[in-house]
Amino acid sequence: MAISMYQASAPQFAKMLNNLLVILQKGEEFAASKGMDEKELVESRLIADMFPLSKQVQIACDQVKNGMARLAGIEPPKYDDQETTLAQLRERVTKTLLFLQSIQPEQIDGTEEKKIEFSIQTYHFEFVGAQYLLTWLIPNFYFHVTTTYDILRHHGVAIGKTDFLGG
Amino acid sequence: MAISMYQASAPQFAKMLNNLLVILQKGEEFAASKGMDEKELVESRLIADMFPLSKQVQIACDQVKNGMARLAGIEPPKYDDQETTLAQLRERVTKTLLFLQSIQPEQIDGTEEKKIEFSIQTYHFEFVGAQYLLTWLIPNFYFHVTTTYDILRHHGVAIGKTDFLGG
Repeated sequence: MAISMYQASAPQFAKMLNNLLVILQKGEEFAASKGMDEKELVESRLIADMFPLSKQVQIACDQVKNGMARLAGIEPPKYDDQETTLAQLRERVTKTLLFLQSIQPEQIDGTEEKKIEFSIQTYHFEFVGAQYLLTWLIPNFYFHVTTTYDILRHHGVAIGKTDFLGG
Repeated sequence: MAISMYQASAPQFAKMLNNLLVILQKGEEFAASKGMDEKELVESRLIADMFPLSKQVQIACDQVKNGMARLAGIEPPKYDDQETTLAQLRERVTKTLLFLQSIQPEQIDGTEEKKIEFSIQTYHFEFVGAQYLLTWLIPNFYFHVTTTYDILRHHGVAIGKTDFLGG
């Protein structure tokens, strides 16, 4: 008895992406109710040199999309970072969810020791699958979902822990 | 081959708690360098009705302490929520790390199907072990560590993603 790679990743990523849809929807409703330009939320940052909400959502999605594709050994779809509205960001989340649902447990299970290599700018990363999931994908994913939540919450959007965690 | 309950929890919780120590230390250095009263950071919230930094750190620690104790079926130590300085919050993290290190893999492994029940205020929660870890402990833990990071970052503390993720 133990946790499979799929069980430790896909169902909870899917749940959190669905929660992210709700959180973004509540952001839209908030902006509409205040007569606020949605861009104030989409472009908002917790500090000038931190990524804006749009980028937080894009990265959260890409962790799941690229991460699951790397584990499965398939080419991930490419999504351009062009979203400028909360509705477009929700579409990005929905596309990510559909891609995630297209991946079958047998493509992820058994990848615990699979070698995962990639580069970000000048940094080269090497992991085995379980380590990649536990020490990279999961922390990065939660970081960007939480920061999206924190930015919206900072602006007064009526969201709570239950929205973050889901039912 | 799969991931054990211990492997999916303790090493990464320990790593992130160590990262949290670094982040809090950098908060202290920042406050000192600005001649700023540390309380401005400790009591800071992203919005009035959200928990302050002190509570974010306390909850992050308690997720690990209480969560691992519930899985292991042992009584967790009780820590009073009395910290008013970043140094005291670092002590809280260190105590949590020591407790975490006292738990052996064999106390956690095999708890995938263990029934976990607890109440928070009027809510009663029932999980089995793997579900408790993946859908409750891990998301809650990352939420509070990330929000601690976000509060400090919002104030201008010089921390980056590398501090969050660790080496």
